[in-house]
Amino acid sequence: MEPVLFYGVPHGCSFGSIVALEWLGQPYRLARIDMLAKSKSDIYGRVNSMHQTPTMLLENGKSLSESFAILQNIAGRDLERKLGFAQGTENHDRLNQMLAYLHTSFHSAFAPAWTAYKLKEGDPAIQMLRDLAREKAASGYAYLQSHLQGRDWLVGDHRTIADAYMIGIARWGEDLGLFDLKSEYPGLHNYLQKLEADKGVIFAHAIEDGSDAATSGMFLGHVTLDEVGQRLAA
Amino acid sequence: MEPVLFYGVPHGCSFGSIVALEWLGQPYRLARIDMLAKSKSDIYGRVNSMHQTPTMLLENGKSLSESFAILQNIAGRDLERKLGFAQGTENHDRLNQMLAYLHTSFHSAFAPAWTAYKLKEGDPAIQMLRDLAREKAASGYAYLQSHLQGRDWLVGDHRTIADAYMIGIARWGEDLGLFDLKSEYPGLHNYLQKLEADKGVIFAHAIEDGSDAATSGMFLGHVTLDEVGQRLAA
Repeated sequence: MEPVLFYGVPHGCSFGSIVALEWLGQPYRLARIDMLAKSKSDIYGRVNSMHQTPTMLLENGKSLSESFAILQNIAGRDLERKLGFAQGTENHDRLNQMLAYLHTSFHSAFAPAWTAYKLKEGDPAIQMLRDLAREKAASGYAYLQSHLQGRDWLVGDHRTIADAYMIGIARWGEDLGLFDLKSEYPGLHNYLQKLEADKGVIFAHAIEDGSDAATSGMFLGHVTLDEVGQRLAA
Repeated sequence: MEPVLFYGVPHGCSFGSIVALEWLGQPYRLARIDMLAKSKSDIYGRVNSMHQTPTMLLENGKSLSESFAILQNIAGRDLERKLGFAQGTENHDRLNQMLAYLHTSFHSAFAPAWTAYKLKEGDPAIQMLRDLAREKAASGYAYLQSHLQGRDWLVGDHRTIADAYMIGIARWGEDLGLFDLKSEYPGLHNYLQKLEADKGVIFAHAIEDGSDAATSGMFLGHVTLDEVGQRLAA
């Protein structure tokens, strides 16, 4: 059976892995995980003992976690699609560097604001946490905008898994109401707008929203956790 | 000229990259960066605009940052040394997953305690920050100990860059006085003791301490930042 990507809602960084699967153009399925649900699924606990998303269930019934590893797995399925680069090339190093930066510094910059998002309205810690996130994310946006100067894509001269991952994270500044990227980082905003017009990105938004999603890849539909339980490796 | 690794002291996560270079057995040099220095070096700012360590200056005069990318670059220089795995193999995915986990969740678990380490004695935030770090790191230690059950190494059946990186991070629990790993995580402690007896690890400790360091690889000596300035790419 084709791989199944478990994506988290709302606002999951799994977004990038959905986009990458659309760009790859090979058959895949999705399974939806509500990250705010009060009770945790036992079946999903067998897929990912830390209950984190994304996770990808591979053809051999084993699961692969961490966006970095999932995205490199997707890119490596067909290097001709140019979502990644061959090991040993300079662009392979640059892609690892950019993914690691996005995966660590940039992703974690927003963490205090996500903590605040889950607090009860009126909690005195909310403003402090949001200010901290804004300060950290601002240096990330500034770095990424300066990196993109004179470039169309984050790494190399075509779209890669780094761009797919970026679009799922960079939106958080506005999702959380911390930034107005158009006025504050216009160069970065233009790059993100170009990605927002991409069919794979439009599809990933529709999937998250639960609205009609038109695949331009080979999405074969959702599977339920019960169906997943039957194909897990022992 | 051979690559130069810029490593940070004290307690840098660059430690793992030094170990990996020893294991690789190819010529390299080191440059020491004091992460607590009050004034930042202009030359190092040209190597890494965020002044973070580690960074590796490559043969072409360009620099590569992020432990993840540096370690995969080192492993990729000679796959026969088995510090990493060929792209497209299952162990390559597993190595990416483990490195990403160590690079994000496990590394960042200690961040509050490093923040506390830099505060003035008596600051009321210190205990809260240390408690937070202990809670997060405890789940990391527990996960890693359970992962290592029945295994000699983190990924595959021999030492890899994941083990090199792990030893530089896992020590922080005791460096910071948060854990007694021998009594709390005996299985993990045994694995770490095996690594501590490794020649490359002994060498990396001596380098950090500024004591006599006997290379079992091809370490050619330190370079100064002034020497580095002359070989940077424009």
